[in-house]
Amino acid sequence: MSEIFVGIDLGGTNIKIGCFDSGIKLINKTSTPTNADMGPKVVTDKMAETVEKLLADAGLPLQNVSSIGLGCPGPAKYSEGIIESATNLPKFKNAPFRKMLSKRLGKPVVFENDANVACWGEYAVGAGKGVKDMVFFTLGTGIGGGIINNGKLVHGGGDNAAELGHIIIYPDGRLCNCGQRGCVEAYASANATAKRATEAIEAGAKSSLKKVLDQKGRITCKDVYEHLKDGDNLAKQITDETAKALAIVCINTLHTTEPKRIVFAGGMIAAGPILLNRIKDYFNEHIWSLRKEPVEICFAALGEDAGITGAAALAKQAHEECKLKSG
Amino acid sequence: MSEIFVGIDLGGTNIKIGCFDSGIKLINKTSTPTNADMGPKVVTDKMAETVEKLLADAGLPLQNVSSIGLGCPGPAKYSEGIIESATNLPKFKNAPFRKMLSKRLGKPVVFENDANVACWGEYAVGAGKGVKDMVFFTLGTGIGGGIINNGKLVHGGGDNAAELGHIIIYPDGRLCNCGQRGCVEAYASANATAKRATEAIEAGAKSSLKKVLDQKGRITCKDVYEHLKDGDNLAKQITDETAKALAIVCINTLHTTEPKRIVFAGGMIAAGPILLNRIKDYFNEHIWSLRKEPVEICFAALGEDAGITGAAALAKQAHEECKLKSG
Repeated sequence: MSEIFVGIDLGGTNIKIGCFDSGIKLINKTSTPTNADMGPKVVTDKMAETVEKLLADAGLPLQNVSSIGLGCPGPAKYSEGIIESATNLPKFKNAPFRKMLSKRLGKPVVFENDANVACWGEYAVGAGKGVKDMVFFTLGTGIGGGIINNGKLVHGGGDNAAELGHIIIYPDGRLCNCGQRGCVEAYASANATAKRATEAIEAGAKSSLKKVLDQKGRITCKDVYEHLKDGDNLAKQITDETAKALAIVCINTLHTTEPKRIVFAGGMIAAGPILLNRIKDYFNEHIWSLRKEPVEICFAALGEDAGITGAAALAKQAHEECKLKSG
Repeated sequence: MSEIFVGIDLGGTNIKIGCFDSGIKLINKTSTPTNADMGPKVVTDKMAETVEKLLADAGLPLQNVSSIGLGCPGPAKYSEGIIESATNLPKFKNAPFRKMLSKRLGKPVVFENDANVACWGEYAVGAGKGVKDMVFFTLGTGIGGGIINNGKLVHGGGDNAAELGHIIIYPDGRLCNCGQRGCVEAYASANATAKRATEAIEAGAKSSLKKVLDQKGRITCKDVYEHLKDGDNLAKQITDETAKALAIVCINTLHTTEPKRIVFAGGMIAAGPILLNRIKDYFNEHIWSLRKEPVEICFAALGEDAGITGAAALAKQAHEECKLKSG
């Protein structure tokens, strides 16, 4: 009997589910609306039914499933399997979600922060393969993070480690949504990148992006990188600031947990080498001269399947460590 | 037979050695000049003889010693027990120091970075007692660090994690000895604190410290804190800048490995509550409003015995983990 691992990526809008073999190779996957307003009981049932259907479609019996990984936005008491107060899952407050799903499917469930899940996916089968120490950033609306130390996820004293978007790089700088000033997220997330471009144009900077702003009423991060490729000077300046902020935070995490690889994921990496190379340039410009640091800075490899892949990989790892609690 | 653990703190000038009981309570201790220019063989012999004499003085047989901890400045290949190129131990380059001492005394030796050793001491029996996640800073000539994650020292991918003094808090700021700009060490070490005061006076700032500079030709960090207590305005401003830099780095490490306690050690903590309270003030001013962080910020408890205590505690831990290599 070949082992199967299921990975679930629970978001506020959609639930993505994938079945994986013991090498964490995707067998099949699906996606269904979360309907978070129906509350945890209904969502749990739907999630379980979708898993059952996905297995049936692939001709796999549920009994072959060794364990299930579930990634979910925080804040949550991950070790207890309880969602505390995730902004986009308000009705899940204090629901014993891990236990509910485990009971419904009769399988052990590993419950983990969504950024940690994606981090683990890259570590296990993606851009982090071959190292034991890694730092991971997701560059999206905000900036999330994950840290692998000596082959294990760093959870911290209260399950809230690796809030890497809120490392302060410019004290008293731009106001972040979190209430701090000068967080890297306030400079280098996709939202912050678009916002800085918008502010610059509104302040009178010359740019081909002005036409976009005038026509669409807003600029996206994608617009910035498109105009960068077309040679726009403001887009170049905005990208440089983003890259520099990310390079500083690479240096700071290097001097903290000393990763061998730093992996960037999220929508913004669609910008491609033009962004990655600028991050590396600034890193090399700002890193110390004491010794050559062999850290690699790269983009993630798993794309939109990172969540389900990471959840399945985490389920496998926990299964192998014989540390699973079955609810 | 009661177990004994020996802790050795190897510095460029002195070797400190202590014998500890199984509760890591100091039995007796001694100090002897390192004479580093005599090379590793002579220093190893002297170290071993001093251990033997210390045990004899306390009426303890060598056979009661379970293991020995040795703290040493870096850079070193700690996992291999080799000093690479410590600035104040030039003749020790590539010496298999752990093996030499282990062979000479017939005991397993744990070899660790001196800042990590002090960190472990505070964690095991000092200011870090009772938590599993801690961040540790030594505020001296430079700023060193150590990180405990889930009850274990973080070593990083190349044995050089927790170079916390080189976290950049002001990109493009003051030049640090390491070659980077804007490191916390360039603002908040004892040296940097004294240097900033000196620069301010030379630039014309009014201060009671001017008399010290005129008379002694230099200002020390101790002078700054003494004049702070006497109400000098420049000393207050310099201290505020130091405290703010340390608070920012507290926030940044909190968002990275999420310690439950942050411990400051080193000569500078002699400044007392006047410094600690300012660090806490700036921490509270700059930390996010997303949730109340229950992290405690405090000063170290072990004083000048931190090195030998930490080395002995580490020896005990390694002994208990049955992971000791006897050379």
